[in-house]
Amino acid sequence: MNIKPLGDRVVIQKLEAETTTKSGILLTGTAKEQPQEAKVVAIGPGAMVEGKRVPMDVEVGNKVLYSKYAGTDVKVDGEEYIILKQDDILAIVE
Amino acid sequence: MNIKPLGDRVVIQKLEAETTTKSGILLTGTAKEQPQEAKVVAIGPGAMVEGKRVPMDVEVGNKVLYSKYAGTDVKVDGEEYIILKQDDILAIVE
Amino acid sequence: MNIKPLGDRVVIQKLEAETTTKSGILLTGTAKEQPQEAKVVAIGPGAMVEGKRVPMDVEVGNKVLYSKYAGTDVKVDGEEYIILKQDDILAIVE
Amino acid sequence: MNIKPLGDRVVIQKLEAETTTKSGILLTGTAKEQPQEAKVVAIGPGAMVEGKRVPMDVEVGNKVLYSKYAGTDVKVDGEEYIILKQDDILAIVE
Amino acid sequence: MNIKPLGDRVVIQKLEAETTTKSGILLTGTAKEQPQEAKVVAIGPGAMVEGKRVPMDVEVGNKVLYSKYAGTDVKVDGEEYIILKQDDILAIVE
Amino acid sequence: MNIKPLGDRVVIQKLEAETTTKSGILLTGTAKEQPQEAKVVAIGPGAMVEGKRVPMDVEVGNKVLYSKYAGTDVKVDGEEYIILKQDDILAIVE
Amino acid sequence: MNIKPLGDRVVIQKLEAETTTKSGILLTGTAKEQPQEAKVVAIGPGAMVEGKRVPMDVEVGNKVLYSKYAGTDVKVDGEEYIILKQDDILAIVE
Repeated sequence: MNIKPLGDRVVIQKLEAETTTKSGILLTGTAKEQPQEAKVVAIGPGAMVEGKRVPMDVEVGNKVLYSKYAGTDVKVDGEEYIILKQDDILAIVE
Repeated sequence: MNIKPLGDRVVIQKLEAETTTKSGILLTGTAKEQPQEAKVVAIGPGAMVEGKRVPMDVEVGNKVLYSKYAGTDVKVDGEEYIILKQDDILAIVE
Repeated sequence: MNIKPLGDRVVIQKLEAETTTKSGILLTGTAKEQPQEAKVVAIGPGAMVEGKRVPMDVEVGNKVLYSKYAGTDVKVDGEEYIILKQDDILAIVE
Repeated sequence: MNIKPLGDRVVIQKLEAETTTKSGILLTGTAKEQPQEAKVVAIGPGAMVEGKRVPMDVEVGNKVLYSKYAGTDVKVDGEEYIILKQDDILAIVE
Repeated sequence: MNIKPLGDRVVIQKLEAETTTKSGILLTGTAKEQPQEAKVVAIGPGAMVEGKRVPMDVEVGNKVLYSKYAGTDVKVDGEEYIILKQDDILAIVE
Repeated sequence: MNIKPLGDRVVIQKLEAETTTKSGILLTGTAKEQPQEAKVVAIGPGAMVEGKRVPMDVEVGNKVLYSKYAGTDVKVDGEEYIILKQDDILAIVE
Repeated sequence: MNIKPLGDRVVIQKLEAETTTKSGILLTGTAKEQPQEAKVVAIGPGAMVEGKRVPMDVEVGNKVLYSKYAGTDVKVDGEEYIILKQDDILAIVE
């Protein structure tokens, strides 16, 4: 299925939090930190400002940090996505 | 009956949530997820910005994802519709 | 009496909700749905944006759907009207 | 005394609510509806937008409908007035 | 001491409420109405809009009506003043 | 240490409230009024509006009145300062 | 790992609060003041205003004072960072 976000929206998918710490301890339940990293899976055409499209700053495939409570959770074909405005993406992580 | 939304408003109609899961189990009551998918049935002429119409990004017939609490529920001729601003439409699903 | 709304305001009058359902059952009390349909009885000259009047999108006589809690109820010569901004009108119904 | 409102402000004075109904019954206390009609007694020079005065839409002597909770009540020389922004005037009644 | 307000701010000083009514009765305590009249004692150079000063509408010496809860009370050299934005001044009284 | 505020921010330092009244009575505790006077110790380069710096209205050394709850208290090298936006400075006192 | 903040965002890292006072007393627990100083570790390309990038006022390596509750805490590779808008940085400390 193909999701085409509108305006300056971005569709991201959470990255699985690593379940082992650097020292190799397996984390469970609440000890596992809430991941804020996600992968960009689709981007909109950009916001419309005074008749012109503002080009997007992120690209499909980027790994990003995002504001924890931003956006809307959607489930399409059994997969969970978050659709948020590009402005709720804090940074690209490389 | 013919509904002509004003400005950048869009009239959508919820799509029936599938009542069987992929594995074929019939869902009932609260186990059935709240659908966020809808079909566009009418669009406005576009917002007026500094004397010019901004063309709409969605078209009649598009299947869209929308913000769950956005818009106003209306009932016309026994059919339920939601009228919302285009900005409350998150993405087009193809 | 003549009401001339200012700016982009519109004077509407609620349409009587049909008190019989399609199947002919007479509805009473709370079973009767809150009507959101109204008829436009007067329109303002349009909002003033940067020194120019923005022409109105609705006309006197239009049947419209409006946001349930928008506007101000006024009573002039015993008749009840609602004065609201055109932006609180969702759609024209034909 | 002379009150000169600033900007797009308007000074209005409530009109006495008619204390008899059309059928001639004298109303008392809470049965008497809260009047929303007033007479314009002074107008400001108009709002200043980008260095230019926007001409006012109401004139001294106009009978107007206004938003019930808008504006500030003032008492000058024993007379009660309401000073509000022109935007809180809903319509001119003729 | 000299107070020079910034931008479109105005320094006013409350006028003593008359303590006798028109009929000559001396008022005390809460029966005395909260005065909303004040005298302008200093004005700022005007707001800065797109690189230009917007000239002020009030002058030092004007008697004005102001929004009761607007502004900040300050005490300089034992004298009480209110510093508010010109927009919180409702009207000039002459 | 050198503090360089950003944009239209200003660093001020509260002036010690005089602890004796005009009549020479020494004040203690809550009887001592909350001072709202401060001295400007550093100013930013000015706000950026449409690509241009707006020059500041206050200068280092000015004695100013400021909004009591505005700004952020910071402690640098044991000294207490308040960093606020110039717009929260009400007036210059000379 | 490389963090590239978007727009006018800045990535900072809190500076360890000195745990000894000037007089050499070791502070513990709540007696230790909440540090508001941080070091800039990455900056965005600048905000986009009407199609142009506004250059940033801070640089990587700057020691800054920031609004205590601003921004989002993120943890990348076990290191804690704060990502905030440049406007939440109060001043550069030298």
